[in-house]
Amino acid sequence: MPHGQPDAPYPADLLKLVEDYLVALDLGADRRAARLVEAMRYSLLAGGKRIRPVLTLATARSRGADPAAALPAAAALELIHTYSLIHDDLPAIDDDTLRRGRPTCHVTFGEDIAILAGDGLFAEAFNLLLGRQQGKPKVVLRAAAEIAAATGVQGMVGGQYMDVAGEAAADDDLRTLHVLKTGRLIEAAVVCGAVLSGAANAAPYRAFAAEVGLLFQIVDDILDEAGEEGELGKSVGKDRAQNKVTYVSRFGMDGAERLAAEAAERALERLAALPGDTSDLACLTAYIRRRRR
Amino acid sequence: MPHGQPDAPYPADLLKLVEDYLVALDLGADRRAARLVEAMRYSLLAGGKRIRPVLTLATARSRGADPAAALPAAAALELIHTYSLIHDDLPAIDDDTLRRGRPTCHVTFGEDIAILAGDGLFAEAFNLLLGRQQGKPKVVLRAAAEIAAATGVQGMVGGQYMDVAGEAAADDDLRTLHVLKTGRLIEAAVVCGAVLSGAANAAPYRAFAAEVGLLFQIVDDILDEAGEEGELGKSVGKDRAQNKVTYVSRFGMDGAERLAAEAAERALERLAALPGDTSDLACLTAYIRRRRR
Repeated sequence: MPHGQPDAPYPADLLKLVEDYLVALDLGADRRAARLVEAMRYSLLAGGKRIRPVLTLATARSRGADPAAALPAAAALELIHTYSLIHDDLPAIDDDTLRRGRPTCHVTFGEDIAILAGDGLFAEAFNLLLGRQQGKPKVVLRAAAEIAAATGVQGMVGGQYMDVAGEAAADDDLRTLHVLKTGRLIEAAVVCGAVLSGAANAAPYRAFAAEVGLLFQIVDDILDEAGEEGELGKSVGKDRAQNKVTYVSRFGMDGAERLAAEAAERALERLAALPGDTSDLACLTAYIRRRRR
Repeated sequence: MPHGQPDAPYPADLLKLVEDYLVALDLGADRRAARLVEAMRYSLLAGGKRIRPVLTLATARSRGADPAAALPAAAALELIHTYSLIHDDLPAIDDDTLRRGRPTCHVTFGEDIAILAGDGLFAEAFNLLLGRQQGKPKVVLRAAAEIAAATGVQGMVGGQYMDVAGEAAADDDLRTLHVLKTGRLIEAAVVCGAVLSGAANAAPYRAFAAEVGLLFQIVDDILDEAGEEGELGKSVGKDRAQNKVTYVSRFGMDGAERLAAEAAERALERLAALPGDTSDLACLTAYIRRRRR
């Protein structure tokens, strides 16, 4: 399959690499933990565009590396993303019943198993990354440290907390919430792709990814307000129902659309500063801008 | 403080190293996540004998290494242990209200924050280990991979699942449940101490730790049945109330005491095969055998 065409809809070959890897992934099959693994796979294999791992592979390929070589790290990011969705959806947090077009993990398996399925995916993400990612130990360690930092208090969990606690009173805080909750993991996806393919300086990749992360979140807020539930695969209007501050509630639909366009433009500007064939990354940016789910 | 006396009650200097390190640990203080960090610290700093990190430091010292050099990895193990307690105590899992002598995390902070506090401690454990543990990258990677494997489906989370699901119908399964739920992390504590202090072959350390882990769990079951709630700092009789299979329910109190004595004996036999001054490890084994909480 040709890649590198700026008008290609999505790097389908990279998506297939990720999907095949996830389907074949051994999450520790033991008959006694079979239902736990079933719950983990139920949420992990519910489809989706696998944006984070595909960003990792696309970044590696832009640098001339074999994208398949970064699959363990890339898949780890998807396990972590899935774990965060399972815990976010729990009754005590967002209390959501629909995700990726199916009943959420706790609806299907019960709250106890859903909590443990999230915990298990998080642990298996590091297991995969630390146990199976090839490369110089120093480089693997750098990628793993990047992901750990992106998931902690100054990353994903901190952002989830701010969201839950309604700690986004000012515009500045809204930006911080999203940088932490979704931005840092998207950033880690791109940085890992760069680091694992030998980049000594990750800063220009981080700068590009920061805009992609912002774009992703603004579009997410727009879709929560305006998306079609059937198409989106999750409940819509939840943010408004829960009085959450979003880009739409803060800036209106037109304002949010304008901010999205500006973020996409800045992302492409920063992409132009990166070496190699960045056309996959341009396609991904365009996809994130215009996605319907 | 002298160490190395076989009759010393507990390696107090190592405990102090761990405690001071945990108290000073920066978990990502940001005013907007202040209450999340407060919940994490509430559970982390509730006291306890810090058996896992002290095992790591004692193992490193037995090999002639400076125990303080292994503190990030050791502390990471305590963060992970604390995270597992917070999630275990949740209403959807064990529904416990008392832990280490205080109301459990979700009782004090709410279920949503407790879930995220557990998630945050898990993430910060890897952040600490991957970001701050000194040593050759290859060695740090090996220690981190050991801990990740110990916490996943074939470790702690798998054991928690078996416990929740009542998947311990046969004696063999009861052993597996405990090996996974508590044994693997205790094993990782000893193995990390060995690996970080330069051991090429971790197998003899693993063999010793496996018996310590088994001993720990049998004593835990005895204390759940016979311990004093005030002394134990957690609810007693919960296992029986929840019809859980334990060493006491399966073998009776006398049988469980006998199994504990046998495990302690095997642990000391295996300890004798290790090099260096293993007196701290002997003290820890004796402590685990006779602990009251």
